[in-house]
Amino acid sequence: MSSRRFLKGLQEMRKHLGPEADDYVERIKAISPAFAQVNVEFPFGDLYTRGILDDRVRELCTLAALTVQGFALPELRIHIRAALNCGASRTEVIEVITQMIAYCGFPAATNALMCARDVFEELDAEEQGV
Amino acid sequence: MSSRRFLKGLQEMRKHLGPEADDYVERIKAISPAFAQVNVEFPFGDLYTRGILDDRVRELCTLAALTVQGFALPELRIHIRAALNCGASRTEVIEVITQMIAYCGFPAATNALMCARDVFEELDAEEQGV
Amino acid sequence: MSSRRFLKGLQEMRKHLGPEADDYVERIKAISPAFAQVNVEFPFGDLYTRGILDDRVRELCTLAALTVQGFALPELRIHIRAALNCGASRTEVIEVITQMIAYCGFPAATNALMCARDVFEELDAEEQGV
Amino acid sequence: MSSRRFLKGLQEMRKHLGPEADDYVERIKAISPAFAQVNVEFPFGDLYTRGILDDRVRELCTLAALTVQGFALPELRIHIRAALNCGASRTEVIEVITQMIAYCGFPAATNALMCARDVFEELDAEEQGV
Amino acid sequence: MSSRRFLKGLQEMRKHLGPEADDYVERIKAISPAFAQVNVEFPFGDLYTRGILDDRVRELCTLAALTVQGFALPELRIHIRAALNCGASRTEVIEVITQMIAYCGFPAATNALMCARDVFEELDAEEQGV
Amino acid sequence: MSSRRFLKGLQEMRKHLGPEADDYVERIKAISPAFAQVNVEFPFGDLYTRGILDDRVRELCTLAALTVQGFALPELRIHIRAALNCGASRTEVIEVITQMIAYCGFPAATNALMCARDVFEELDAEEQGV
Repeated sequence: MSSRRFLKGLQEMRKHLGPEADDYVERIKAISPAFAQVNVEFPFGDLYTRGILDDRVRELCTLAALTVQGFALPELRIHIRAALNCGASRTEVIEVITQMIAYCGFPAATNALMCARDVFEELDAEEQGV
Repeated sequence: MSSRRFLKGLQEMRKHLGPEADDYVERIKAISPAFAQVNVEFPFGDLYTRGILDDRVRELCTLAALTVQGFALPELRIHIRAALNCGASRTEVIEVITQMIAYCGFPAATNALMCARDVFEELDAEEQGV
Repeated sequence: MSSRRFLKGLQEMRKHLGPEADDYVERIKAISPAFAQVNVEFPFGDLYTRGILDDRVRELCTLAALTVQGFALPELRIHIRAALNCGASRTEVIEVITQMIAYCGFPAATNALMCARDVFEELDAEEQGV
Repeated sequence: MSSRRFLKGLQEMRKHLGPEADDYVERIKAISPAFAQVNVEFPFGDLYTRGILDDRVRELCTLAALTVQGFALPELRIHIRAALNCGASRTEVIEVITQMIAYCGFPAATNALMCARDVFEELDAEEQGV
Repeated sequence: MSSRRFLKGLQEMRKHLGPEADDYVERIKAISPAFAQVNVEFPFGDLYTRGILDDRVRELCTLAALTVQGFALPELRIHIRAALNCGASRTEVIEVITQMIAYCGFPAATNALMCARDVFEELDAEEQGV
Repeated sequence: MSSRRFLKGLQEMRKHLGPEADDYVERIKAISPAFAQVNVEFPFGDLYTRGILDDRVRELCTLAALTVQGFALPELRIHIRAALNCGASRTEVIEVITQMIAYCGFPAATNALMCARDVFEELDAEEQGV
């Protein structure tokens, strides 16, 4: 796991997820090094680094996708933080989730909204040094 | 169907879908006026007009959502055109679909890619006056 | 395939699907007798005959389920006819699909609406002896 | 949020959800007033008040939809209570979930069954003044 | 619930789930005897006993299915144990989940991976008599 | 697209898909070279070549996954052929689809069954030099 692709992916992952990136990779690696490797290399090494769309737009699109899936709440928490790290505002995060009501209905969108509330509260607690 | 909300929604819908908007509404109305009414009023009248996100970003998020669902191909065709109408490039449309591989896997993303190809070919044919 | 469960299921299936029931079973049996057997015995023999809910309500619930799945259009066509056979009106069929917008969003609900339109047109053509 | 549509929706919502309706709206409003507004106005103000289907049948259809989605457990809890409030029996709630096995398989239906058990236990505890 | 189909199903279920099978059935039966009955009779009595595929391959296919659904984590826990009971190794369980990334993307596959980690830890604790 | 990973993936893809592999890649490449590249490199280059599970079992797991998704019919056609190329029998293909009824219900499983019928008919026609 020290290939150029892996290092490029890990660097991109850190830009999106912040210092949590390394912990996340370690947690996956403990169960399956192969899963951790493709998780870093493929979305972050191969896809997110392609330019064409800026990071903020990419992360808002990811929020849209994870919202409509309904079951993707752990990954949604990570990407709400990533969207904020990449320049999106909290208002924009909520706005994408709200727009998704039209495409996935209220159950999946409400799951995502509650998830955003939890992440915002965690971030507020972290900022206050709790 | 001449409420202020409906007219505001129809105007927004025309901005996104172009001249197809009215045909689309008529097709739905022929089966169910109530469905047509909420289709115009709710996503286009209530949600898309809220500002906060610009139309291009909203449409790219919609493409992300429709791609991961896998079954939403008729609506995806409409929103690929809408994304282009709102300032997205074809390259950006393909890029969002490609990014979604990480969130929905290849089957749903490939469905969307083939759909984009069909829409681009239709647009080329229309431009050539075919 | 002449067990009591199978015959009970086939009888129930005919009540819901009308004369199409036997054709449907034959089409499945040609590929897989085992699939055809459980398709008759399990939903129609075991579940639909349990009483508790009347056939019309059961079929409206089935329409709700097939609508939100988004991909279940061939089975939805069959159950729109079944709902009508069991005493639901066309207006009620459309109403369930319209209500589902709140739970699955517009793409899946629009797929179902277009499906209902096609079935209603087929039924009109059949009535006119076309 | 005092438009005629909102008030009509809130009144309908209270009929379905009972006294929990206002708490639910407040919880959503704390994160996003816009989301809360459309949550009241659209499904409850626009859709549930249309007549055509009675409230009990509408709620059973909603249970069918939320069951097959598999991930909609928080909303399912609310609508199991709503179904009971609208005249459905516990036996009918379980029956709809059981019927859905045929349309979504055991995993999603079992999720819903366990959810019904939890709601019934909560209701029993509430009745006993626990 | 003492029909030949039920007993055949329960025997097969014990082969897959081990001593947990009876507890599982009792838990379901407490809410709905009808649900418990079809849960034993249909997948285990009718499907898993058909031969053609050996139990290990059947369980790996079930893991693939439950992984891509994303929301089926309680049933996935049961079938990870079942796969191991039927001769699959932990490495094979992880491998199927990892392969599924290509078909469902990272969110659903990561849900499944974390679920496998939890089951493996439980098994380790059980073996150590904790 | 001549990296070692790509060539390794293409070789694996040919083993699974037969002579159709190159056509498939060319069709994707015509719309998006990047999508084609990751489609070859990631599932076929990175995942299918890892050993641990043999090709037949891997393809049966893929059939299980594509069946329960319900919307993945174009990819399912390809992988039914791939399963046969990797040593699975037609009976085993049908058996996996039939087993999936328990996990996804009849609508998605029936979609897959009809897809299998179409592929088998195509293969029969090809063998007869039609």
